[in-house]
Amino acid sequence: MRIHTTELRVRYAETDKMGVAHHSSYLLWFELARTGLLREAGFPYRDMEAAGCMLPVIEYGCRLLRGAAYDDLVRIDTVVSELRSRTVAFRYRAWRGDILLVEGFTRHVCVDPRNSLCSVPTDIRAAVAAYREPAGDQ
Amino acid sequence: MRIHTTELRVRYAETDKMGVAHHSSYLLWFELARTGLLREAGFPYRDMEAAGCMLPVIEYGCRLLRGAAYDDLVRIDTVVSELRSRTVAFRYRAWRGDILLVEGFTRHVCVDPRNSLCSVPTDIRAAVAAYREPAGDQ
Amino acid sequence: MRIHTTELRVRYAETDKMGVAHHSSYLLWFELARTGLLREAGFPYRDMEAAGCMLPVIEYGCRLLRGAAYDDLVRIDTVVSELRSRTVAFRYRAWRGDILLVEGFTRHVCVDPRNSLCSVPTDIRAAVAAYREPAGDQ
Amino acid sequence: MRIHTTELRVRYAETDKMGVAHHSSYLLWFELARTGLLREAGFPYRDMEAAGCMLPVIEYGCRLLRGAAYDDLVRIDTVVSELRSRTVAFRYRAWRGDILLVEGFTRHVCVDPRNSLCSVPTDIRAAVAAYREPAGDQ
Repeated sequence: MRIHTTELRVRYAETDKMGVAHHSSYLLWFELARTGLLREAGFPYRDMEAAGCMLPVIEYGCRLLRGAAYDDLVRIDTVVSELRSRTVAFRYRAWRGDILLVEGFTRHVCVDPRNSLCSVPTDIRAAVAAYREPAGDQ
Repeated sequence: MRIHTTELRVRYAETDKMGVAHHSSYLLWFELARTGLLREAGFPYRDMEAAGCMLPVIEYGCRLLRGAAYDDLVRIDTVVSELRSRTVAFRYRAWRGDILLVEGFTRHVCVDPRNSLCSVPTDIRAAVAAYREPAGDQ
Repeated sequence: MRIHTTELRVRYAETDKMGVAHHSSYLLWFELARTGLLREAGFPYRDMEAAGCMLPVIEYGCRLLRGAAYDDLVRIDTVVSELRSRTVAFRYRAWRGDILLVEGFTRHVCVDPRNSLCSVPTDIRAAVAAYREPAGDQ
Repeated sequence: MRIHTTELRVRYAETDKMGVAHHSSYLLWFELARTGLLREAGFPYRDMEAAGCMLPVIEYGCRLLRGAAYDDLVRIDTVVSELRSRTVAFRYRAWRGDILLVEGFTRHVCVDPRNSLCSVPTDIRAAVAAYREPAGDQ
């Protein structure tokens, strides 16, 4: 099973007056990580979208254990936690060094340009399956 | 039981290339709604924070049913879904007219300026309890 | 000459670790103010856009005199500072009470859905002209 | 004269319904570029701030020539355009390949933790001077 890894630095604008990254920032980092996983899998999301296959978010969740400070180097580990005909979910862990900062997930449906549900194309499904975590691993 | 209501218009910058509000926008709107509830309850969060009582987010979740378009008038209904000695959770529903767009929650701990866990002050707890939804109402 | 006025509260997420609104927030507030002016003038931007007339930003500038803190009530006064056949510019002043926080401007071109330059429609031009500040008033 | 170069990919959340990066995104990218320049110069901004030397933005400006699409690889070239005892300004150019997308600047004052104006420390000034563009090069 593959794990996709993305690294980023916390932007100043992402902090709030508590001095750490605002809790909504993690969703933007998850998106960055997901984009990276799809590119690594051979299906850049921009190409998927251009081909008429979109993956809007229908659910997300996040548990925050530690704050991320400005300029911290954060690593996001991403796996596929669910892979059905019309839905896919990703699970993310954000780390600073070996300290776990945040755990989260996003769940997506596959839609066409008319916003109708459709199946995740077979080749994309196959490529993404390499990142599928074993069932019951939550 | 009281329900706090906040209204807002979707900002252009909050939309993404799918043409609807980015899924992270809801967290910002929930924050606006929570700020409004605390003000209505008589404890503006800026005063709480100045008095050394902070409520950082430790968990959040959101289910997206419908998209919100630019300039849509969105109403957020907010209640308190959990109220313990050191934690409080809020539940949010975002509506466009009578169409439910999104449901979500945020869970918070109470910390002091040294970032140590502390109890939610009694007067704040009492004021916020007016918005407490009946148990089992999830 | 009319001046459009918009009010908003500084969101927690808009602050950064310096404790005041991040300097990019003003652009989002200017956008809110501009949207308000166009609505007040009878031409909601969402309708303009639906009718194929868009006003992308081609230039902006901002001078920051004072910071805006979380939950501050900020008033944005907006006027039209330039009105030509294919371009329009707005000038903004952000106030907290009678303290000037920020001055800025945005300049826009009028484009059609194929992103080609076009003229600002006559009726919109006429309506917006009511907010035109006298020349040399910069 | 040195030029600092930063690369980034346009995030989905940074786009708006026009399909390109929202005009406020450039300020966030400029901030990323400035942070990179200071780190490269040997004075990470987080260390400067911890040492009590802050550089809040007092003015900014930006001209937008071309849009940046989702997932575009954008390069920001940054130089120091002004270097006085208490103020410093940076100039930025954002490119996609050899196409210039945007030009902008930010001007900063140096303040201490009590928010009083102070001089840019001599060693920082010396290090940053390596990026100083020749006068009259605007």
